[in-house]
Amino acid sequence: MKKYLAELIGTFSLVLVGCGAAVISGKTIAAGAPAGIGLLGIALAFGLTVAVMCYAIGPISGCHINPAITVAMLVAGKINGRDAVGYIVGQFVGALLGAAVLYAFQQGASNFTMGEWALGSNGWGPGYLGNYSIVSAFLAEAVMTFLFLFVIFATTSKLGTGPMTGLAIGLTLVLIHLVVIPITGTSVNPARSFGPALFAGGKALQQLWLFIVAPLVGGIVAAWLWKGVFETKA
Amino acid sequence: MKKYLAELIGTFSLVLVGCGAAVISGKTIAAGAPAGIGLLGIALAFGLTVAVMCYAIGPISGCHINPAITVAMLVAGKINGRDAVGYIVGQFVGALLGAAVLYAFQQGASNFTMGEWALGSNGWGPGYLGNYSIVSAFLAEAVMTFLFLFVIFATTSKLGTGPMTGLAIGLTLVLIHLVVIPITGTSVNPARSFGPALFAGGKALQQLWLFIVAPLVGGIVAAWLWKGVFETKA
Amino acid sequence: MKKYLAELIGTFSLVLVGCGAAVISGKTIAAGAPAGIGLLGIALAFGLTVAVMCYAIGPISGCHINPAITVAMLVAGKINGRDAVGYIVGQFVGALLGAAVLYAFQQGASNFTMGEWALGSNGWGPGYLGNYSIVSAFLAEAVMTFLFLFVIFATTSKLGTGPMTGLAIGLTLVLIHLVVIPITGTSVNPARSFGPALFAGGKALQQLWLFIVAPLVGGIVAAWLWKGVFETKA
Amino acid sequence: MKKYLAELIGTFSLVLVGCGAAVISGKTIAAGAPAGIGLLGIALAFGLTVAVMCYAIGPISGCHINPAITVAMLVAGKINGRDAVGYIVGQFVGALLGAAVLYAFQQGASNFTMGEWALGSNGWGPGYLGNYSIVSAFLAEAVMTFLFLFVIFATTSKLGTGPMTGLAIGLTLVLIHLVVIPITGTSVNPARSFGPALFAGGKALQQLWLFIVAPLVGGIVAAWLWKGVFETKA
Repeated sequence: MKKYLAELIGTFSLVLVGCGAAVISGKTIAAGAPAGIGLLGIALAFGLTVAVMCYAIGPISGCHINPAITVAMLVAGKINGRDAVGYIVGQFVGALLGAAVLYAFQQGASNFTMGEWALGSNGWGPGYLGNYSIVSAFLAEAVMTFLFLFVIFATTSKLGTGPMTGLAIGLTLVLIHLVVIPITGTSVNPARSFGPALFAGGKALQQLWLFIVAPLVGGIVAAWLWKGVFETKA
Repeated sequence: MKKYLAELIGTFSLVLVGCGAAVISGKTIAAGAPAGIGLLGIALAFGLTVAVMCYAIGPISGCHINPAITVAMLVAGKINGRDAVGYIVGQFVGALLGAAVLYAFQQGASNFTMGEWALGSNGWGPGYLGNYSIVSAFLAEAVMTFLFLFVIFATTSKLGTGPMTGLAIGLTLVLIHLVVIPITGTSVNPARSFGPALFAGGKALQQLWLFIVAPLVGGIVAAWLWKGVFETKA
Repeated sequence: MKKYLAELIGTFSLVLVGCGAAVISGKTIAAGAPAGIGLLGIALAFGLTVAVMCYAIGPISGCHINPAITVAMLVAGKINGRDAVGYIVGQFVGALLGAAVLYAFQQGASNFTMGEWALGSNGWGPGYLGNYSIVSAFLAEAVMTFLFLFVIFATTSKLGTGPMTGLAIGLTLVLIHLVVIPITGTSVNPARSFGPALFAGGKALQQLWLFIVAPLVGGIVAAWLWKGVFETKA
Repeated sequence: MKKYLAELIGTFSLVLVGCGAAVISGKTIAAGAPAGIGLLGIALAFGLTVAVMCYAIGPISGCHINPAITVAMLVAGKINGRDAVGYIVGQFVGALLGAAVLYAFQQGASNFTMGEWALGSNGWGPGYLGNYSIVSAFLAEAVMTFLFLFVIFATTSKLGTGPMTGLAIGLTLVLIHLVVIPITGTSVNPARSFGPALFAGGKALQQLWLFIVAPLVGGIVAAWLWKGVFETKA
């Protein structure tokens, strides 16, 4: 049970810190104040939370904190079905709690209103950041989850394991955000999309399916490539 | 005595660098100059100082430089009472000296005035950055100190210790700042709030209690969780 | 063949993430949105992709993902001619695929048009970022590739190898971008220039030669210096 | 001689990358372009160059690339007088070459003019960034060089050495820049100030003395503290 709780705390942190940074500190607060953290700061918030959690809960649960990773690990035969279910339940509950605490923080903000895609929800289309199409959104989420899982398989295989693995994985998530925020806000993680969408409702909830399907597709393809090509002997 | 002096120098650095970066470099100096460091740079200044000090004074004192950490370690039975007192005295003296040197730097600034919440003081409410309520302020400080101590317990336990521990702990403080600066300026550290507040007076001093109580609550809860759940055998 | 495929995936990632970050997230999307990642974020996107790939494919291929590195390694006698050809083919194919996927992402952008030097192409002269001359462009690309290869030879020699090598090499590429983006957009890598130029055509294609010649010159000089001075016994 | 050449190349890189980033990429180039790197990017350019060079030339020369470090090491008995002279000569020559190459880059910039404090020169007073007084300038340079050397002594002592040492030292220089750029541009390194000042002339050259004296004072005090307190047995 410790590892499921670790997954819960890790995913809670990811949603609270990543979405919290985007919602609370993304834009400049006022003309006289220091500049907000911008897309670079938001990218660092998501990715470095994963890096930090790799060192904190990595020794406990392996630090998936992302159902797309857990499913890819299941496909690659690196986790059993029972644990996969426990992990994924922990991840979704943690993401929900993270969004709930962020919602509580925002209750005390002088200017808080729940607009469309609130609390850092993922999305696409007219009105969502760069106004990208659904095709771009699906392609970006699938390709980038593929890259994410490729790096994870490579750095946690016998070849690559070492003290820098957690940082390398976290920085990969930073890099993905540096490209994809204007397209979808960047998910590559069904649980991260689920938490805020449940509170935001509306379009965030209607578009949630893509942030489940596309990351799973990308992750599973990476699992096949890794097992079928790079982990073979030849 | 070396370890108390190390705590003093570490907390001195944290206040001088963190608050100094916020006060001196946070905003853009003039229209023709490069952009100021913004909330992202301020977050990095606080967090990376902790990371650096973990490598410098970690081998001497364990690098707490934060009374909330020392109290949580005391609750978890990882430091004795006598050392805890020595550490905390060193931390408060260091923070005071850090604020004093920053004050001296600012005496030579052409445009320096001591406004409300001067020298990087923590606070909340109307006129403080994002104008958040006291409830948000308390919640944010308590929850984020909980997360901070959770990572510290996890990465310094038998499971997690390694060369990346100091960086992971420092990056956690970066992440906390990326979310909480608009709410309270981010303390999670009673000494860091104490130094500037003593110089700033006014509201900074009146609101100081919250930055002692909330971090202690968050830190003690993390100590209980770690001892009661994650360090048990089952 | 695994190592050639690893080089392909690494160079694919470098072009997709580096050029993607520049094209998609570089500028602020709209007045109400968080600030774009700017030159700092673009520099981090290119350099940290190399860092991450060093940990992911370093154990497979050594992670060149840059023909200037492969040629310098050939000159220094650290790779054989047959492998060098396989690596370089993988790099050029990967770069082309990276630019193709970025092009596909951008098809779904509401405001996408293919201007001069599109998709993050390198260049110089009037209309290209800082409007630098061809002499500055050549000098900057050659000197910076020299520095890049000097760090690579030094950190991968018997003296310097360790867990931080990949990060040191990636950060060197970040540093190079922090200086050279206004001059040429920063290449120091013929494959990285080739991918976008083939799609962009026009001036990007006409100016491609410089981003092949100058990096090769800088890399080969570094190989001579390292072999002739630093790897000697005296 | 290899180690003197390594010091030359390291200091060359520090001036070319640090000052180059400030001069070429600090400000936003034009209204339609991505934002310049700002004070945060400049701080990272200087500090991460030191981090990278620690891994590249650390095994060759120990990577001082700063006369204040070499003198402090001499005072602490960790380098002999003959090597100290060789190191310092290499550092000044390297800094001069770095400024020369930056000057060459800038010859090809459409808008280049040599104003007061050109090429990233250090300075203070009316017209220099934050218009700080000479007292603030001296105090900031001395206190921050003290902190820099304290971290260097602590992390390279028997207690602290490990793979993260180079990064910790480089990040300390980042932190110092995050505070001090508006005051003096940040030197804490006589060679780094010397290179650009020789080209810039005028006030940069008149004010050069402070960037020799203040860093030496701070560094020597740190050497005394480390030897007299932290390296004693009691």
